[in-house]
Amino acid sequence: MIQRPRGTRDFLPDEMERRRHFEGILRSTARTFGFREVATPMFEESELFVLRSGPNVLKELYNFRDKGDREIALRPEMTAPVVRMFVNGMSNDPKPIKVFYFGQCFRYERPQSGRYREFFQFGAEIIGNAGAATDAEAIALAASMIKALGLKDYRIRIGHIGVLRQRLADAGVPADRTAEVLQKLDKKLYDEARPLMEGMGVAQVDIDDVFALTETVGDVSVLERVPGSAGDYLRELISLLDVMGVRDVEVDLGVVRGLDYYTGMVFEAEAPALGAEKQICGGGSYTLSELFGGEKVFSTGFAIGFDRILLAMEKEGIGYGNEGIDAYVIPVTDDVRPQASGIAASLRAAGVSTDMDIMGRKMQKALKYASGAGARTAVIVGAKELEKGCVVLRDMSTGEQREVPVSDVVSAFI
Amino acid sequence: MIQRPRGTRDFLPDEMERRRHFEGILRSTARTFGFREVATPMFEESELFVLRSGPNVLKELYNFRDKGDREIALRPEMTAPVVRMFVNGMSNDPKPIKVFYFGQCFRYERPQSGRYREFFQFGAEIIGNAGAATDAEAIALAASMIKALGLKDYRIRIGHIGVLRQRLADAGVPADRTAEVLQKLDKKLYDEARPLMEGMGVAQVDIDDVFALTETVGDVSVLERVPGSAGDYLRELISLLDVMGVRDVEVDLGVVRGLDYYTGMVFEAEAPALGAEKQICGGGSYTLSELFGGEKVFSTGFAIGFDRILLAMEKEGIGYGNEGIDAYVIPVTDDVRPQASGIAASLRAAGVSTDMDIMGRKMQKALKYASGAGARTAVIVGAKELEKGCVVLRDMSTGEQREVPVSDVVSAFI
Repeated sequence: MIQRPRGTRDFLPDEMERRRHFEGILRSTARTFGFREVATPMFEESELFVLRSGPNVLKELYNFRDKGDREIALRPEMTAPVVRMFVNGMSNDPKPIKVFYFGQCFRYERPQSGRYREFFQFGAEIIGNAGAATDAEAIALAASMIKALGLKDYRIRIGHIGVLRQRLADAGVPADRTAEVLQKLDKKLYDEARPLMEGMGVAQVDIDDVFALTETVGDVSVLERVPGSAGDYLRELISLLDVMGVRDVEVDLGVVRGLDYYTGMVFEAEAPALGAEKQICGGGSYTLSELFGGEKVFSTGFAIGFDRILLAMEKEGIGYGNEGIDAYVIPVTDDVRPQASGIAASLRAAGVSTDMDIMGRKMQKALKYASGAGARTAVIVGAKELEKGCVVLRDMSTGEQREVPVSDVVSAFI
Repeated sequence: MIQRPRGTRDFLPDEMERRRHFEGILRSTARTFGFREVATPMFEESELFVLRSGPNVLKELYNFRDKGDREIALRPEMTAPVVRMFVNGMSNDPKPIKVFYFGQCFRYERPQSGRYREFFQFGAEIIGNAGAATDAEAIALAASMIKALGLKDYRIRIGHIGVLRQRLADAGVPADRTAEVLQKLDKKLYDEARPLMEGMGVAQVDIDDVFALTETVGDVSVLERVPGSAGDYLRELISLLDVMGVRDVEVDLGVVRGLDYYTGMVFEAEAPALGAEKQICGGGSYTLSELFGGEKVFSTGFAIGFDRILLAMEKEGIGYGNEGIDAYVIPVTDDVRPQASGIAASLRAAGVSTDMDIMGRKMQKALKYASGAGARTAVIVGAKELEKGCVVLRDMSTGEQREVPVSDVVSAFI
């Protein structure tokens, strides 16, 4: 028996309806914020992702040579493709460009809870501006999306890449090795960061202070520890978020996001219920377009891990009742099928969701199928009633039945 | 400058909104017919597609070995994946299973008008039953979808694979070579079909008659030429479609769909305005599950080429006006940005689609941006009006302005 590839999923009707429902909430929240949807191809030149993330990304890409000998890769994320699209076709549009996107991404890694080889991301980018107002828009959208989905237990932590970068420079970490150290700090790998920094000649007291900085979490008052412009910037940002009603955010100077292209504010959201894989959202301000051959353009963006946030919602018992269908039409005998088909067609034409028995099932079995399909009303079409120009409507929850003229069936549903 | 891969597309906001709009119409039509959405992975074991379509399909697949040395391929179509999903996880569900799906498919072929390497299909399958009622459901859904999109100039042609198969057998074509001949007939390649059949010892008169059969198109009366059960079947099907209001169909015995797994009824829809690439929909009744390790299950399905049907609609001038946004908030000076942000947040919380200036543009430029973004009302937040507790609402189409208390802004929009 042929199986689906490892790390991928099939979405059966109930699960799919739930996903589409919550996807719709994310989409409409983004539109409410003035973001507009875009889409990019499922694959790109591998080079695009190497430019964004460095050559290490190749290890986890689904990359291959196509029949024209081009090195391409299934997209592992969508920021690089969207910025590539901006450089190719939107760079002259009025700024800011506020876009969002939703779709599959691919990473070849060991599948585990909440981690798939084919996974779904929802993301947004504000391209063409830098500043607290821009960052506030992005964070407010992310927070509103999480709230709109109904998730209760989550944390949003905001940091500034400039704080640690400055501290590392002051401590004597060479500029070209800052990224190495930040990657360790991003994952809180202090055991590895210490010898690394020692090797660069950083004093123990400075190392300890850097570690303390990455553990600095709290309300806006922790910014008193932060000298200079980064602290002022975060204060302005958090006060803007406050007037926008986004008050459930923390300052966390340990958010560094481990990627070179971030330029200032960085933020993450997590759902603690998910344990080790608790991050559900990440983003920040960055420049990327100049790596792809465009002009340097300041941007802010984020991505939400759709699978993970759904998992977190499931753990909180956030349910979704499927819509079911309005009507299930049952021809009692095969000779009345044309009349039954005609009635089903009239209902559908009126926008009433309608299914119909096509198996020729006997009444009890047909009613059982209708019930399983979540039908609210059965339309029973029998020869005897048809002689009187009528059919029987059966309320599937109460079992109550009533005769209705064929000409009134549609109006009984709308 | 990095470009997107050849044969793929970026969808910018206007185009994307149009696509999502029409995608939504297809989705809701399918739901109205009692079909439910499913999704399968973007790639499968290559073997799956070879089992469905034969080894020739490999030439046009995006296939490759993943890092675990599995031979996988981006899906070139979705019937095989959906049937594979059925075999893996839905085979015990009550029949019929009525599902639909929408998404990207991939074929490595020369890009041309309406033909992309990454293209979009909308499809539906009824799994678990055979018969005129089943086939009528599928064709009625396809017809309703095309109608719901607003396309005017299209043809739906219904045939039966059994008619030509029987005629070829009668003419002496060996059973194991029928597929070869049908593939030529499917493409109306008579110049190639004739020597092929001559080589099988088929008489000229039979060859001519076979060709005439494949050119038999018209209303239900052409079935008088068709002896036996296939003709009766099509008559029953077309009369069922008639009571379902689907009357714009033709009989076309030349529809053969060139694939082995079809078992009876086959149908296609075309939009003549598209010229050579005019087919917008194709399907039929088939069995496929037994090839993938499941039991043999009768099914009927079809797929609509979403890109092509959109192209046909464009040629008919079927437009789509973008939604635009309800409100565009403009802080007149930077010091009132917090108040402006607060107003934007209130509007968004009430579901009013709202964008806000984050560039610090001067009034005239901000209004110009708002107009370009399709904003219906500008909310102008100035220090002078704020002192009175007011803001200015500007109707973007008439230019009329009025002062409104801050507390009444939201209610002015809902």
